[in-house]
Amino acid sequence: MFNKLKSAFKLVLFCMIALGLGTDGFSQSLQEVMKERGLSQQDLLAAAKTYTPSGKKDEYVVFSSGGQSGQVIVYGVPSMRIIKYIAVFTPEPWQGYGIGDEHTNNILYEQGKVRGRTITWGDTHHPAISETNGEYDGQYLFINDKANPRVAVIDLKTFTTTQIVPNPIMKSEHGAAFVTPNTEYVLEASQYAAPFTNEYVPLEEFNEKYRGAMTFWKFDRKKGKIVAKDSFSVELPPYWQDLSDSGKGMSAGWVFTNSFNSERYIGGFGKGTSKKWSNRLPHEAGVSSKDTDYLHMINMETAKKLFQAGKFEMINEHAVISIKDMVANDALYLIPEPKSPHGVMIDPTGQYITVSGKLDTHVSVYDIKKMTALIKKKDFEDVDSYGIPILSMTKSLHGQVELGLGPLHTQYDSVKGIAYTSLYVDSAIAKWDFLNLKLLEKIPINYNVGHLVSAEGDTTSPDGKYLVALNKMSIDRFVQVGPLHPQNHQLIDITPGRKMQLLYDMPLPLGEPHYAVMMKADKLKTIKRYKKKWFKNRVKPGREKVVRKGNQVTIYSTLIRSHFSPEVIEVKVGDEITWHITNLERAQDETHGFTIDQMNIHGSLEPGETETFKFKADVEGVYPFYCTEFCSALHLEMMGYFMVKP
Amino acid sequence: MFNKLKSAFKLVLFCMIALGLGTDGFSQSLQEVMKERGLSQQDLLAAAKTYTPSGKKDEYVVFSSGGQSGQVIVYGVPSMRIIKYIAVFTPEPWQGYGIGDEHTNNILYEQGKVRGRTITWGDTHHPAISETNGEYDGQYLFINDKANPRVAVIDLKTFTTTQIVPNPIMKSEHGAAFVTPNTEYVLEASQYAAPFTNEYVPLEEFNEKYRGAMTFWKFDRKKGKIVAKDSFSVELPPYWQDLSDSGKGMSAGWVFTNSFNSERYIGGFGKGTSKKWSNRLPHEAGVSSKDTDYLHMINMETAKKLFQAGKFEMINEHAVISIKDMVANDALYLIPEPKSPHGVMIDPTGQYITVSGKLDTHVSVYDIKKMTALIKKKDFEDVDSYGIPILSMTKSLHGQVELGLGPLHTQYDSVKGIAYTSLYVDSAIAKWDFLNLKLLEKIPINYNVGHLVSAEGDTTSPDGKYLVALNKMSIDRFVQVGPLHPQNHQLIDITPGRKMQLLYDMPLPLGEPHYAVMMKADKLKTIKRYKKKWFKNRVKPGREKVVRKGNQVTIYSTLIRSHFSPEVIEVKVGDEITWHITNLERAQDETHGFTIDQMNIHGSLEPGETETFKFKADVEGVYPFYCTEFCSALHLEMMGYFMVKP
Repeated sequence: MFNKLKSAFKLVLFCMIALGLGTDGFSQSLQEVMKERGLSQQDLLAAAKTYTPSGKKDEYVVFSSGGQSGQVIVYGVPSMRIIKYIAVFTPEPWQGYGIGDEHTNNILYEQGKVRGRTITWGDTHHPAISETNGEYDGQYLFINDKANPRVAVIDLKTFTTTQIVPNPIMKSEHGAAFVTPNTEYVLEASQYAAPFTNEYVPLEEFNEKYRGAMTFWKFDRKKGKIVAKDSFSVELPPYWQDLSDSGKGMSAGWVFTNSFNSERYIGGFGKGTSKKWSNRLPHEAGVSSKDTDYLHMINMETAKKLFQAGKFEMINEHAVISIKDMVANDALYLIPEPKSPHGVMIDPTGQYITVSGKLDTHVSVYDIKKMTALIKKKDFEDVDSYGIPILSMTKSLHGQVELGLGPLHTQYDSVKGIAYTSLYVDSAIAKWDFLNLKLLEKIPINYNVGHLVSAEGDTTSPDGKYLVALNKMSIDRFVQVGPLHPQNHQLIDITPGRKMQLLYDMPLPLGEPHYAVMMKADKLKTIKRYKKKWFKNRVKPGREKVVRKGNQVTIYSTLIRSHFSPEVIEVKVGDEITWHITNLERAQDETHGFTIDQMNIHGSLEPGETETFKFKADVEGVYPFYCTEFCSALHLEMMGYFMVKP
Repeated sequence: MFNKLKSAFKLVLFCMIALGLGTDGFSQSLQEVMKERGLSQQDLLAAAKTYTPSGKKDEYVVFSSGGQSGQVIVYGVPSMRIIKYIAVFTPEPWQGYGIGDEHTNNILYEQGKVRGRTITWGDTHHPAISETNGEYDGQYLFINDKANPRVAVIDLKTFTTTQIVPNPIMKSEHGAAFVTPNTEYVLEASQYAAPFTNEYVPLEEFNEKYRGAMTFWKFDRKKGKIVAKDSFSVELPPYWQDLSDSGKGMSAGWVFTNSFNSERYIGGFGKGTSKKWSNRLPHEAGVSSKDTDYLHMINMETAKKLFQAGKFEMINEHAVISIKDMVANDALYLIPEPKSPHGVMIDPTGQYITVSGKLDTHVSVYDIKKMTALIKKKDFEDVDSYGIPILSMTKSLHGQVELGLGPLHTQYDSVKGIAYTSLYVDSAIAKWDFLNLKLLEKIPINYNVGHLVSAEGDTTSPDGKYLVALNKMSIDRFVQVGPLHPQNHQLIDITPGRKMQLLYDMPLPLGEPHYAVMMKADKLKTIKRYKKKWFKNRVKPGREKVVRKGNQVTIYSTLIRSHFSPEVIEVKVGDEITWHITNLERAQDETHGFTIDQMNIHGSLEPGETETFKFKADVEGVYPFYCTEFCSALHLEMMGYFMVKP
């Protein structure tokens, strides 16, 4: 018996090493080790969650922006394993996105054009899952491009981008994508103010002619598409709008966006700056000189009615409702918010709106009941230069809580009244009570957290359980892979009744995520193979052929383990080629890739999929083509010759 | 005391859950659980290795090809966390690779051109770490592009691609990159045979005019560059050469490549195929009709002498040594190898060369001593159509071992005589003894393993410990993210004296890895910031300016938290802009990004780095520019206006 127990005891130590708790040897007693490291059984259990065993699937799936990678990153929680990079604004050859096939080329290079210019990257910031009654429904994902104002639609049946919509009036954006509780609209707020039209307007006319905006993109759920003609924008002052959110529950029908340059400051620091603007404070100082900026309250229902009533101006073929019309219809208000605010997040009930000021140690909790009461009474403190009524901050506030340095973003818990806020400068997460206005607990992270995400933390019924800190730096956390480090997403246990606990560090190998959303994985209704009927150019087995009409050559070909049909194709220099290609496989995951050597073409054809490639056979020669996906033991033999005769 | 032990006992159970071993409850005794699951203390310890705790660094780093993503994937072992995607053949905006800056644009779009065509992707297959005396030295990484025959050089000081070299005579390749034991040469072997010149040559002349080749790229370690003028190729028959390796130790000076179409078959199955080639067997059958193909033995030292003596023909400005000259100088031999061979891997001593035939259940172990003895005695079995002497397979073999279905690739252990071979069709890894020619053990994996990699498993002194199976399918292993699944890299414990044990599943979120190499992480000498002197266009603080000469506008600007200098820049439509930009930061990881909205430009500037962007201000308007990397609490304020006047 003693030996058995001794053996058990040794195992505990093994396990502790296993859990990364370590020990300096086997000479210490378990109790000593636990005491020394301040461990409880709960600690071990919590740590255990970080490791998902072989073959077991994750409970949650996180959709994270990839930042400048122009992609969306998908990972599982609690395993913190990245399962997919979804190509959105940047061509991605593995997925065959924008490397020659007609369908994705059209999305990326035609739909995605900005002022006639082809854009081959994006700065993705905020993903939003489609919602039904304020709950994630797992059907669609939306993501924005800050650099080249655009919004993309991703179909979660296939995890592919199906639409890119450029914003016709913005020159810069940030506060997107956010959805209304039933995904009627996808919201997009501008950032650095600019003229709505495309002309040069001198900065001297900034106050008069530069503007911000909130765009309401109408989403047709049945078609899975944004409908541009049913969409509109609301003109806003040039205050540099920032993060945004749609109201829900008690605040449903309202849309919120904050701002950080109500100073309307234009910088001019540093030699080389245009004379008129030089020898002034640099932007970051000038923009931060006032103690408060403005939280914007936009009445969506009224804006919608104004749009439907034709109360708008068409600018660049897009409907814009003026500030004047919004104000005249009691649909636009400002409330002061401290200081250089970044996050605006609405609690699950919709009553409380939390704003974090990067340069204030407090978070401010606004109460929609108080705000609407003030509006009802027309109890305004002031009016801004654009005629927008300003509500009193003190009268609108439920209260403020001092959390620490650099508060940015807030997420919610399953427990009523509990919120988590990221503290950028402190490198910590604060857990606090927004009803009773008190700080409960802080946990340090590594390092410099930007956004954070909790399980279903944006919905009307958050799950709690897990929180991920999206840290901007990792410095000493991982093997160093160049001067450019990965970011570090850290998983934190937020089980009610326990202290917050850091569970796991996950490096991000590509991209600089900003925001993320975390959804129950079982809400996904992903397909295993493509349906034939989705492809008008589908080639049926036995119907392969090559058809020539003048110099137009159309190739109808199929793929199945392990050959192409046809396998030898001869054309002439100058021929215009249209190559339809169908993957006939039924088996799950039996993808075939397609490339013609040296032609800069690549497709990824999943089971059932058809793609079309158009190109000119412009240079004579011998071009092998082959299946690029290791599809079977005879994969290397799956090839053909494309012969271009002089 | 009893309570203490009871508590310890409970902890064991917690730990077992922690390790993913699971239990149905806490009612079973530890012994029962262990018995039921066949666990030992060793099992727990082995499982423990899969979890690297927060802040602890990995012992090994794996460089894996990204396949059609055109990238290299870097991950740590044992944590199996991906730390970096290195941009190589595909533009990647997060790293600022090929999105406008002169340096990376030049590598990707100028150096990387194939027959004058810009290529924006690659099909990477085999990474190779630079070696010194047959050991990884951690200085450089080389990787090939199968689709557009090219080899790239990655500098591991910065983890960036520094050179792309297109192959002047190949139209398809596969057996690259592999290095000689002191990285004198980087090897690149062709795959689908084609004419060396760029003209159309009918397939009827396949045997006479289509060729394979082995290119020896001379590497200048000091400059970190491949030197094209000191490089050459050896002509080979059109047998579709495949994987390759450089000899070492006893086989140093020889280079090996196998082949899988010594039939010289051209397919023609399927309607639409050119008439001459139709109604024949499909490629995968025709190519596999013979029982053996040929292992090629190339004497590198002799080839080098022939090159230095001017015994070559210049084709597309590249030196090619003929089969005839190689044979005349006793430098090229063939040995039959069964059947549809794929892998050729040389053991740590260099004596034993293992070949796997995809359609044979055996692996074949050749002995270099026997082969060179046969050559010395001129004991040849036959001569092929191109005059190349053929050695007897039976006389060259050390022996064969039956391992299972679809053997592909082999890696080596720290224990003498032990090798691991992937079995594609079996979905298993075989551990076997290549000295005593016996199968020792098999472990199932999930599913369909292609390559595999062991710790330093390609070197003269493998470390053993860990093995990773690079599995082509995952099907049911992870949350489903579309019809295109991630691949699954599985970590296997190969500690001597224990049974092989599966430790961890890692999904690959982007790319389809082929081969990988695993190196001790402490060999990396990565820099933390760039040195000023590396950049001729560096802008010093205080020297920012805008200089106009006619319509040539040169901007000298700097970046430091949290502003650009200058911040407002005015130019005229039609101006040609050259924008030099220096990141003045010294702090580790203080990267700033740079974009001008809507201009399709993005740079990532790590501390100390200077980049140059050239573009035409072709459309009037107001263009905000900003820092795309979340660099400080005032990151959003780090912006300026680029004004293009009419």
